[in-house]
This record gives sequence, C-alpha cells and structure tokens, in this order.
Amino acid sequence: MVGGGRGAFIGPVHRMAATLDGEAEFVAGCLSSTPERAIESGREAGLKSVYGTWEEMVERERALPAGERIDAAVIVTPNHLHATVAAAFAKAGINVVCDKPLTRTLAEAEELEREVSRTGVVFCVTYNYTGYPLVRAMREMVRGGQLGAVRRVAVEYYQGWLATNLAAEGQKQAAWRADPALAGAGALGDIGTHAENLMSFVTGLEVESLCADVRSAVAGRTVDDDASVLLRFRGGARGVLTASQVCVGEENGLAIRIYGERGSVAWRQENPNELRVSAEGEATRVLTRAGAGGPTSNGTRLPSGHPEGFIEAFANVYRGAFAAIRAKQGGQAAGNLPHPTIADGVRGVRFVERCLASKGSWVGW
Amino acid sequence: MVGGGRGAFIGPVHRMAATLDGEAEFVAGCLSSTPERAIESGREAGLKSVYGTWEEMVERERALPAGERIDAAVIVTPNHLHATVAAAFAKAGINVVCDKPLTRTLAEAEELEREVSRTGVVFCVTYNYTGYPLVRAMREMVRGGQLGAVRRVAVEYYQGWLATNLAAEGQKQAAWRADPALAGAGALGDIGTHAENLMSFVTGLEVESLCADVRSAVAGRTVDDDASVLLRFRGGARGVLTASQVCVGEENGLAIRIYGERGSVAWRQENPNELRVSAEGEATRVLTRAGAGGPTSNGTRLPSGHPEGFIEAFANVYRGAFAAIRAKQGGQAAGNLPHPTIADGVRGVRFVERCLASKGSWVGW
Amino acid sequence: MVGGGRGAFIGPVHRMAATLDGEAEFVAGCLSSTPERAIESGREAGLKSVYGTWEEMVERERALPAGERIDAAVIVTPNHLHATVAAAFAKAGINVVCDKPLTRTLAEAEELEREVSRTGVVFCVTYNYTGYPLVRAMREMVRGGQLGAVRRVAVEYYQGWLATNLAAEGQKQAAWRADPALAGAGALGDIGTHAENLMSFVTGLEVESLCADVRSAVAGRTVDDDASVLLRFRGGARGVLTASQVCVGEENGLAIRIYGERGSVAWRQENPNELRVSAEGEATRVLTRAGAGGPTSNGTRLPSGHPEGFIEAFANVYRGAFAAIRAKQGGQAAGNLPHPTIADGVRGVRFVERCLASKGSWVGW
Amino acid sequence: MVGGGRGAFIGPVHRMAATLDGEAEFVAGCLSSTPERAIESGREAGLKSVYGTWEEMVERERALPAGERIDAAVIVTPNHLHATVAAAFAKAGINVVCDKPLTRTLAEAEELEREVSRTGVVFCVTYNYTGYPLVRAMREMVRGGQLGAVRRVAVEYYQGWLATNLAAEGQKQAAWRADPALAGAGALGDIGTHAENLMSFVTGLEVESLCADVRSAVAGRTVDDDASVLLRFRGGARGVLTASQVCVGEENGLAIRIYGERGSVAWRQENPNELRVSAEGEATRVLTRAGAGGPTSNGTRLPSGHPEGFIEAFANVYRGAFAAIRAKQGGQAAGNLPHPTIADGVRGVRFVERCLASKGSWVGW
Repeated sequence: MVGGGRGAFIGPVHRMAATLDGEAEFVAGCLSSTPERAIESGREAGLKSVYGTWEEMVERERALPAGERIDAAVIVTPNHLHATVAAAFAKAGINVVCDKPLTRTLAEAEELEREVSRTGVVFCVTYNYTGYPLVRAMREMVRGGQLGAVRRVAVEYYQGWLATNLAAEGQKQAAWRADPALAGAGALGDIGTHAENLMSFVTGLEVESLCADVRSAVAGRTVDDDASVLLRFRGGARGVLTASQVCVGEENGLAIRIYGERGSVAWRQENPNELRVSAEGEATRVLTRAGAGGPTSNGTRLPSGHPEGFIEAFANVYRGAFAAIRAKQGGQAAGNLPHPTIADGVRGVRFVERCLASKGSWVGW
Repeated sequence: MVGGGRGAFIGPVHRMAATLDGEAEFVAGCLSSTPERAIESGREAGLKSVYGTWEEMVERERALPAGERIDAAVIVTPNHLHATVAAAFAKAGINVVCDKPLTRTLAEAEELEREVSRTGVVFCVTYNYTGYPLVRAMREMVRGGQLGAVRRVAVEYYQGWLATNLAAEGQKQAAWRADPALAGAGALGDIGTHAENLMSFVTGLEVESLCADVRSAVAGRTVDDDASVLLRFRGGARGVLTASQVCVGEENGLAIRIYGERGSVAWRQENPNELRVSAEGEATRVLTRAGAGGPTSNGTRLPSGHPEGFIEAFANVYRGAFAAIRAKQGGQAAGNLPHPTIADGVRGVRFVERCLASKGSWVGW
Repeated sequence: MVGGGRGAFIGPVHRMAATLDGEAEFVAGCLSSTPERAIESGREAGLKSVYGTWEEMVERERALPAGERIDAAVIVTPNHLHATVAAAFAKAGINVVCDKPLTRTLAEAEELEREVSRTGVVFCVTYNYTGYPLVRAMREMVRGGQLGAVRRVAVEYYQGWLATNLAAEGQKQAAWRADPALAGAGALGDIGTHAENLMSFVTGLEVESLCADVRSAVAGRTVDDDASVLLRFRGGARGVLTASQVCVGEENGLAIRIYGERGSVAWRQENPNELRVSAEGEATRVLTRAGAGGPTSNGTRLPSGHPEGFIEAFANVYRGAFAAIRAKQGGQAAGNLPHPTIADGVRGVRFVERCLASKGSWVGW
Repeated sequence: MVGGGRGAFIGPVHRMAATLDGEAEFVAGCLSSTPERAIESGREAGLKSVYGTWEEMVERERALPAGERIDAAVIVTPNHLHATVAAAFAKAGINVVCDKPLTRTLAEAEELEREVSRTGVVFCVTYNYTGYPLVRAMREMVRGGQLGAVRRVAVEYYQGWLATNLAAEGQKQAAWRADPALAGAGALGDIGTHAENLMSFVTGLEVESLCADVRSAVAGRTVDDDASVLLRFRGGARGVLTASQVCVGEENGLAIRIYGERGSVAWRQENPNELRVSAEGEATRVLTRAGAGGPTSNGTRLPSGHPEGFIEAFANVYRGAFAAIRAKQGGQAAGNLPHPTIADGVRGVRFVERCLASKGSWVGW
C-alpha cells in the first residue's frame, strides 16, 4: 500500500476490505509522504516490509523473486500521485489497485492507460459502489433488458461535509481535496466520478453530450463543490447527474434511478440492502440483497436480513481484482466477477474534464 | 363551475375540496362542452342553475342581483379555454378560481392578467400542492431564513401514466393533454408548472436563467413528456427541475429538497404528512403535520398521526380564495391564508415558454 | 348530530366525512350538553333545526312526516350517553350512526343491540379505520385465502398524548376520557377497540381466549392507559394486541401485520396509502391505494399517488351506512360496501370487558 | 475455533468479524464433527493447527507454552456441545468466545458459569446485535436516564425461513435447530435469546415475572417456533417480546422500541444505521451511526452515510472480548468496550427456561 497512513479515511477501509475474505494480506507499504512518518505508520500497521518512499518500494519489490514479491500495489495517496506511482508499479510488472479519480487530468489518465496496456498488469480502480450486490443485480436487470430501452437516468451524490470551508480550518481530509494541485477537480472528481461510474456500470450507456453547471458554492474554495449535469446518451436516453458536497444534512447520498420503457429500478447507497423494482402494470417490488425472489449471487456473504455495508461492497471489488490477478498468474479465466478497470478510470476523468469544459454549454464526449 | 363533467378527474376533486369546510356550495355550472351533456352533467351533479354554454352562464349570472349571483366561477376545462372563459367572468365582475396551467401561451396569460387587474376580481390559480400544511411550514422556514441563504434546489415531478401512447388508445385524460391545440405544452404545462410553483412558493427565489432539455420520449406524441431543467436563481442559488410523465413505476412523484447554508428541508408529496429538516451539526428531525415540535397552524384540520391528503390540501387553497373573496366583499383583510394568484399563473406559463424556447441553451427569464 | 360542539375533535370530522361525497347534509342537531351552548353551537354550525336537548330532538324529529325527518342521527357524545341516546333514536325509527366504543359496559351494549334488532333501524358504528381502501384490500386478501391459514396477528395502537396526566391539567379531550363514569374504560375503549376491530375486520378470526396485562401507567389516572394482550383464536392462530396512550413520540400509531402459511401483509395507519404484501418465495410488493397491480376499487376517490387520508376513510364508512339506509328506504340491496354494525360495536365492548376481567390470566371470550 | 466448517453459516462470520480489525488471526481449529471432515475443513480454512477432535485441541493447546498457545477458543458448534467444550477450554485456562444460546438447559449454564468463575478466564457470549453502534448509543441514552423511567418495552424478532418444515427437507441449518437434543429450545433459544439480550443490554431492566404463549406452529416440528411473552419488570415497566420463525415475508426482523416517561427510542436491525429518538414536546430525530448530533464513538469505523452492517457489529463484540483478554494478560483495564459475558449467557438460558415453564401463566424469574 502506498498512502493510507495516520489520519487517512480510506486506507484502513482498503485494508479491511482487501483482507475480509482471507484472500490477501498487507505485507508491504509506504503509508505516509515523509520517510519518517512512513516508517512509523508502517510499523504501527504491522507491515513486514516498511518503505520510506514509494520509489524505494517499487525498486525493492521489483528486485524480489516472483514468489516473494507483492502481488499488487494499492495506491491510496492524494490524487496527484496516482498517475506517477501507478505507472511505476505497472512498469515494474506489479499489478495495481488504485483509488479514484484515476488522475487529475485526462492527459495523465490516457498516458497511464497506455502504460498499463503495454505492461499487461491487472489494474483495478476502486469504484467501490459497484461492489454492492444489489448494484450488480441492477446491472444484470438493466443490461439484460428487463426494463426495455432506458429512457431516463437520475443519479445524484449529495454530501454536506464541505458546506463550510473546512479546508481553511485545517481538516486533513478536506485540505488536500480543496487544493487543485493535489486533487485536480473538487466534488466532480471526488464524488462525481462515483456517480458517473455507477450510472455507466449499471446501464452501459455511453454519454453522447453533456451540459454541466459547475461552481464553487462556498466562498474561498478554489475547486468545484456543487455541480448539475444534463446528459444525452447514445441511443436517446436522457439524464441528470448531480454532485454536491455543500448540501447540509446529507451524509453520503448516492442514489440512482433508471427508467426504461417497461420498468424502473431505484437504489440508495445509504440503505444498500434494498432495491425497488417496478414493472409496467405491476406493484413495485422491494428486492433485498439475499431475499426471496431477489438476486441469488452477486457477491453476497450473509443470509437475507443480515445487513451488509460499505466494507463488504468494497471487498467485492477486491475479490474481483484478486480473481483477475489469480487468473493472470495461473493463466485461467477470471470468472464473472467484475472489477472496475483502467478504462473505467479514464472514463471518469474524461467525465470530469468534459464537465469542467462545458461551462454551461453542451459539449460532446 | 365550468368543465368537470362526466369522466373528468379534477372536477369532482374541486367540488369536494371547495365544500369540505362548509364554506361554499356548488350551485351553478356548465360542466360539459356540448349543451346536451352540460345539462345532463349539471343535473346529475345536483346544481341549481344548469347552463348549456359557458357564455350563457356568464350572461345570466352577470344579470343577477349581487346576493343571488355566484361568488366565484371555477374553471376546470381543458387548458385552451382558460383564458377566454376566465376573462369573460372577470369582465362580468365575477371572481375566478382557475385550474393550472393558467393558459396555453404567455401572451394569453399576460392579456388575462391585465384583464383581471382592470376588473379587480379575486383570481385564484389552483396550484393545489401549496395547500399542504407542511409545504406551508417549509415556506415559513425557508423564507424566514432558518436555512440561511439557499444554495441548491432540487425539485422533481415524476409520473409514469404516460409511459405509453395512451392518447392514441383514446384515454380521455390523456387525449386532450396530448393535443397541443387544447393543452399548449405537455408534461411541462401539466406537472412542470406544479414543480415550478412549489419551488417558487417555498423559496421565493426568482429564476435568472435556465437551460432546458425537453423532448417527447414516446413515439407518436407531439407534446413534450420528459424534461430536465438547470436553473440559476437571482442571488446565486442553483437548481435542477425534472418533470417527466414517462417514468414507469412512478405515481405522482412530486418532491422537493432545499439546501441552504445552514440547513435543509425535504418533502415528498406521496407521504405529505412528514417533513425532514436538517440543521448543520444536528440530527435530522422528522416534523409531522401537527406533531410535537412541528408547525402549529398552516391549515391543519386533524390531530397529529391522522393523515391528511390531497383533497385537504386542495381545500386549503380554496379556503384562502374564500377568505380573499370575503375580504373583498366585506372590505376586511384576507388574513394570512395564501392562495396562488394570477401572478403565479402567469409565472408558470412563462416557465413553460422559457423551457420550450431554451432548446438546450441558457435563456434569460 | 348529537354532541360534537365547540372544542370537540371528532364532531367536525364526522361532518366533513359525511358530506364529502355530497350524499348527505347536516340539518339538525343538539351539539352540546347544555341547552344554551347547544343552541349556540348549532347556529354556528349552520344547522336548520337546532335543539337544546337530545330528548327534544328525538321527540320533534319523530313527529315529522317521513320526507321531512332526518334520515339518521349521528351520536358523537362522550361514551356514557351512547346507549341511551342511540336507543331513543332507534325506538323512534331513526337510523343511527354512533361513535365507538359503543357503550361503557357489555350489558349496555347487549341491551342496545336487542333494541336495535327490535326496531330494524340501520346502525353504523364508526370504526373509521375500516374505511381505508388498503384495509379493505387486506380484508379481501386475507379472507379470500391469499395468505393461507392465518398463524399470527400483530396489532398495535400506540399514542403518546396521554403520557402525562393531561386530564388533571383540564385538557377537554383528555378530561372525559379519564373519567370512568363518562368513558367506561380508558385506552382499551378509546383505541383498543379500534385495534380489535381492525383485526377482526381484516381477518374474520374469532378470539377464543385472551390474557391481558392492563394498567394505569401514569400516576393519578383512574382508567387504564397501557395494555398488552395475548390472543388465541379459534382455528389456532395466535396474536398480540397492544394499546397504549403513554408512549412518548407516538402520534396515532395503529398498525397491523398478519402472517399466514403462505404470505403476509403489513399496514400502518400513518402512511395509509401503502400496503406491504409478501408471498412465500417472492419479493415483498408495495401495493398502493390505486396503483399498478394493486386493488382496484375499495372506496378509492383519487388516482394513485394522490394521497387520501383519515377523512376520506371516514367518509367511506359513511358511504356504506348511506348505502344501507338507501337500501332500507328503497327496498333494494345495499351492495358490497361494508359498514361496521352494532355487532362490531358489541364485540368491541366485549373485548374491553374481557381484557379488564383477565387481570393477567387467560379468560374465554 | 470449534465448529463452523463446511455449510456452516456462522463460522465464516466469526472468522471475518474476529479478524476485521487485524487484532486476531485464526490459527487452530476443529471445524467439523468427524475427524476426517474436521481435518479437511481446517486445511481449507488455512489453519496452522488442525485438530480432528475438540478434545485433542484442548489437550494439545493446553500443553503449549503461553506464547504459543491460542489466546481464545471460539465455540460455534450446535448448542448441545457448548457447555462441555466451553468448560473444557475454561478448565485448560483458555479464554472462550461462545455462540448463543449458551447451553441447552439452565442447569448446564449455571454449572458452566461456576466453572468459568473458578478458572477466571474471559468468557464472551456472541450476542452480536449488541455490537451495533446505535444499539450502544441506545444503551447510553436509556441507562443514562435520557428517556426517564422506562414504561414499556416492545421487542420482536420475526423470521420467516422456518415457515415450512425445512428440517424435514434436510436443510442443514434447519435440521439441528429442530432437534431438541441438539438445540435445546427452538425459536426461543435461537432468536428469543437475542431479543431478550438486546432488551436487557439496552435497558438494564430485570424481569420480575413473565407470561409466555409458546408453541410449534408448523406441523411435525418438535421444538417451539412461535412465541409471545408478556413481561413485567422490576420497577414497574411492562413489555412484550415476540419471537417467531414462521412469519413468511420476514427476513431477520429484530426490532426494539423503548418508551420512557420523557422520551422513546426505536431501532430496527435491518436498517441498523438509523435510530429514531423522540423527546416529549419535540420532533422525532433520526440519529445516524456517525452523523451530526448523533453518538460519537460506540465502535464506529466509517464516516456517516457509509453503511456498516452485521459483520462490523459482530466485530465490535470481538473487539470487546479482545480488550478484556489483553487486559487480563497485561493486567491493565479493559476499557469501556462492553462484551456480553457468561452472565448474559446464563440469563438468556434462564429466559428460555422460564418461557417454556410458563405455559401461559405468569411465572417469576
């Protein structure tokens, strides 16, 4: 693991998620940005190989024989390091699991994609919301044609934790996210990419053009924190995507509704064990993660009524990546466990760039 | 009453709502569009004065002495007749309660507004959703500054009943709504105006510019049935309004969320006795219509936990109109019972016209 | 109407409900308990015939020719007067609509039942919750065998408004309910009877024996305010009924769940437009009052998604009573609109008496 | 670990929960009931020390020096083995984590309690629902007096998976639970103990007497599957506890509501990240696990809006046990992380025994 030391939110989540099923162990890392803190953090985390810099980590791991080397590097640094660090591991022939957004700019993302393509490593972008069993069930329904042709997509991601200028108060999570040099975009990169990916993952629709109204609502903030986007998809569907971090009262309000010619589905991340499914002329059904009449696999670990949450979904993304890594190592097929790939990562960065380029006008994809 | 005869949905609703509190009686009317059916419908409805045409009704009522004349005419015809019929009653000095959208075109609306202004009659447009007690409570909170300056408005009105080309199958409610000559606009006029009015009623914000993506999603339909609108308000707030009648699984999904600098409110028409209110740093509260810690008046008839619904809200709009009429008749103040006025009606038609004019670009108000 | 004058809660509800469909008019009444206030209240309510005492009302109405006499008397006095007043109207050949609980004691109830039987008048007890369309839909499902044999019934009625000794503070609604001489029982009579009736209405099950734990939780109160009852039904089903008025935070929490061998239903009065229906091996469906795949008649006035509430349900009970009265007057059948009869009223009083007699032991019905 | 091999539900849950925070590792075990399968299962699970019988495991681990011995044994066998296996480990001086119900009979439980007391080992019973952060928040509120004196407790645990005679069809989870020799009681032991413990954990109330109506609703089943219990608590509170596994449509419906003199709380296990809290005269608040205005610690791992579930709660119980074990090993205090102890386990078995002894009459505790 690179990044994810003291005070980090997402580092410990990655560690819990990746090891939940006993398929992996965290053995090496450079968890902080200065050698001193990196070494301290790594020892606290009980890593066997603690590195002071990520460059050292790449160098030393590359030099190890195959059986002793790490199987994958997990990159959970602030965004500005993703491209460089990920490329270095890929060049070293080490598989990569990288947090989103993939990079700060589309140019960086496309360059990284080429590098990954050249090296052939497995590359997983942790769009963790795709790991929820009911999100996967939605995907099967929508892509399987159960709703008919999609007409309208409504996806929203509302948070309230940046309703004030938290970065100015020195809050660590807020600080780097508010610095364009570190984060790239603001809300669009941080949560808009999740919304875009959820929509794409479930529907498979391709954006044809979009019109985005993006701004910084909080005085003194230099990155975007509040955006609405009109979407036109190839094939005729329309949609609205909203991503805002200034909505007081919202916690982690990612939600999606998809309306097709013959049915619709609706899902909310904050109560992820339920999915509402409507078909024309029928009463709405409430499908549960593992309940009667509902989906039967899709990464479920527990019987119905035993809530699964964020970490379990995250673990499913890892499970998919591990299957791909094992398949590559052993030469066998990875099975049908999807994991978001670098193509998803690039598309997310393109989405951010297109939104920022729109300035309220329609722009092509 | 003019219109609202056999097979009508909204006519009987108006009759129940207007008489719920025992403040009014339906005594005269021309309920259908041909003299024969108008007379038959009127007799069935037990009216004392049954007219074959609305022109006859205006003529004869105008000629009656003040004490015997109707106090107000309720116009619930298809949209294309609103302007003409309403103007005729206004000219006759008879107060008017008119269904929404006010007219088919902005020119018609503004002409009617001038006429009403000249005559001084009370003119109420039945934006019935403003009658819900918790909508009025929201209005007080938002306009009273409880949320701080508004940052974001999310208003949506989703229905599914026009997901197929119902008009082509001869369904009466669908048929006139699908005919541009009778209805003017489609979903924008039918439900978009309700969404616009709800947003304006609650926040008092003025639209500065908007960018609307409007279309007919169902093949063979000539009016709009599916629209998304980006909104910029004077003062800096942003918003999204969605109005669609092709969303399978949706019944009457009018919902509003308003996010301010210090708090937010969220309300859904389909469960109208609850209002979620958040303030920064506090747990979300669930206010109920007449419950502890909630609003105390606002047109509530029943104790908490005894659900009120659509008709009661509708009746509150009538109650406001009746108060205004009594105030005019007796020269006393109408009190603080709001009723939507012709200005609201004109603004709604302007909204439709601006959306249709936008064609995906930003247009001023 | 007898009772229901100034400060009454339920009187105005009866007036709105009975006249909602334009099938009835309130024309005569003795609304308060002293002649002066009765006359004042009656005039305020705009009644044509205002009586100072209910005895006078019975006398004078009985003397009128059939066409001029009232069609039915509505009795909404405190409980202690129900038996006497209802019997007097029945003896006068005047149909009766009487609030619940029917009487204070089972002896009074049975005597009244005999009187009503002798006279042949239509007698409706306003168990208003039976008027909700989805309650009627439940009844059809359960009685029609859709769930298989019923195994378990869970019915609860929680309120919080009597969590303190409100009667001691002089609150009018609380005061008479707290006086055993006026009310008979406390929570058991006031809301327990509603719960018992809802359960019986929906399932048709007959109680074989019950074991009730009844008490006054609030110091200084002499009637019961908090009760739990174990139920055994003929045929083997079991159940729990809870009725309490001391549950802070509850408004009008009447809810029922019925579990059968092959399915279950669940309904909550506070959101009455939704019904959850489960069948073995299938996802739970959310039926709505007038929605797709749901019930199609059952007393619905509005399209789906347009909430109906307490008054509309109440109006459905009146509609049933009016149909029965018209049937009696015209000799034709009353149709399939159920209205709770005096038998329901007697059963409710028996339920209260059996619970009070139980003192924690099993007692037969 | 003893038990929890192939086809087991709860074994893998224990493994995920115990290792979630990286505080423990599963190193030794006897996972199945025959030596062959135990060895196979243990190897599949990747254990370092695989034992063919639990007796061998006790013997061999006891013989190891302190630093090499297991810190605790986790017992997840069918119920009939709990007492014997737990006692053996305790006698060997090895701490024990044991699934519920503690034993089949109260005699077994009390004997085990004495044994544990003699040995001084840490003994944790995995009443996992106590690990939910909001359950702990409820406990603090209720025990801290925020609701005033408790008046009424409503706790229910409804499942539907045993609505048919699944055991007769050979389903493994159902089979041993349906055999009195292996399980002791049926629903009362399996889920009734969870309900009892949740109620006790949150309120601290002691049952004074109870009256239970217990039966087997499904033909051919010899253990109880459907029970309702009236409760009287020391200090005057009353309650109802329901536990049934024959309720079609229910998944894992554990829910609790507690009403005090000044407030109430309500929580449902199936949506565990929300807690409804009411105070007299105030609107109900929806507290979230880590949200604004809500509890601040209590075992939360993730920011608000990121759902935690069953495994995370389970892990909190382990966290508490681990803290106690470390405290014992190091001589330092265990901190304020509660873990259910053997006393909770004994109380649960007493609850089952009292319910079965009641046969519909009141019995003392």
